[in-house]
Order: sequence, then C-alpha cells, then structure tokens
Amino acid sequence: MFAILVYDVQEGRVAKALKICRKYLIWVQNSVFEGEITEARLRSLKGELMAVLEENNDSVIVYTFENSRYTKRVTWGIERGSVSNII
Amino acid sequence: MFAILVYDVQEGRVAKALKICRKYLIWVQNSVFEGEITEARLRSLKGELMAVLEENNDSVIVYTFENSRYTKRVTWGIERGSVSNII
Repeated sequence: MFAILVYDVQEGRVAKALKICRKYLIWVQNSVFEGEITEARLRSLKGELMAVLEENNDSVIVYTFENSRYTKRVTWGIERGSVSNII
Repeated sequence: MFAILVYDVQEGRVAKALKICRKYLIWVQNSVFEGEITEARLRSLKGELMAVLEENNDSVIVYTFENSRYTKRVTWGIERGSVSNII
C-alpha cells in the first residue's frame, strides 16, 4: 500500500523521528514522508517511532491507500525532497 | 475529490498561508490540511496561495484522490486539529 506520513513533533525529538521515518519512507518535505510500505513494516515503523516520541505531546498522521491508482501529487513552488515515482 | 495539502513555507509567510488554506480545507496538523475540494476551488486556492508565497523558496505539495474509498487515516500520539470524517 501507499502511505503518506506527516509528523508534528517537539524540536528535541525531530532528529530521531526523521532518522526512523527515513528507514521506511521517502522524505519529500519538512516532516512529510511518502512511499510504498507493507502493513508489517508500518507496524514496526509505528513501534520504533512511538518509542522515541511522547504520546501526549507529539502527533503523527498516516494516510494509507490500498492502491495509488486514484492518487495524484502536485508540487507548487520548489521540490524539496526526492519524490517517489509511484504517483 | 479529496485532497491533502502540506506546505513548508518561510516563517514570515506562514500566517498568510494558514489563513488562505483554512478557507478551502480543514487544518489537521502543523502545515497539514485535508478535505473535499473541487478542481475549480483547488485552482483558486493555488492562485491565492502562490500570490503570497515565493515560488523559489516555499514548497506546497497537494495529494488528490478521485475518491477516498481506498484511503485510511490514523493518528499516532495526540490529535492536533479537527479531522474531517471523510476518511
């Protein structure tokens, strides 16, 4: 499945969150990641991430799509990260 | 169609970008918006937004989905904004 992950994390924990997310997904913009991922890997990403984040202070939203056939992505302004060619 | 908009905008322009995006979509997290939107309204959102942003410094990514039937959203940690009950 295709996933988009966005996090809003306290500054002191951003570096760790970034490092973990980059192992699983592609960084496309400040605190935004995307890419193909399996349910199992998404579960382990969640486990690793929530082990370093604070449940009551930090926020992570994950959008998942069974297939990206109906998905389009456009960028206005500059392209910050590399973008997966999946959509 | 359903849209997710994420922006990475220079601090001095965030307030304007936030105000414009909130007219069209629902704020769900720091620099993340989602909701149903028509092609026409997405075009006018783009027009308004890019009139206040700097094409070479600011970045906006918009994911659009023909329908949100295949889309799921989960939040890990705290829920920052109100979330549309569309997905």
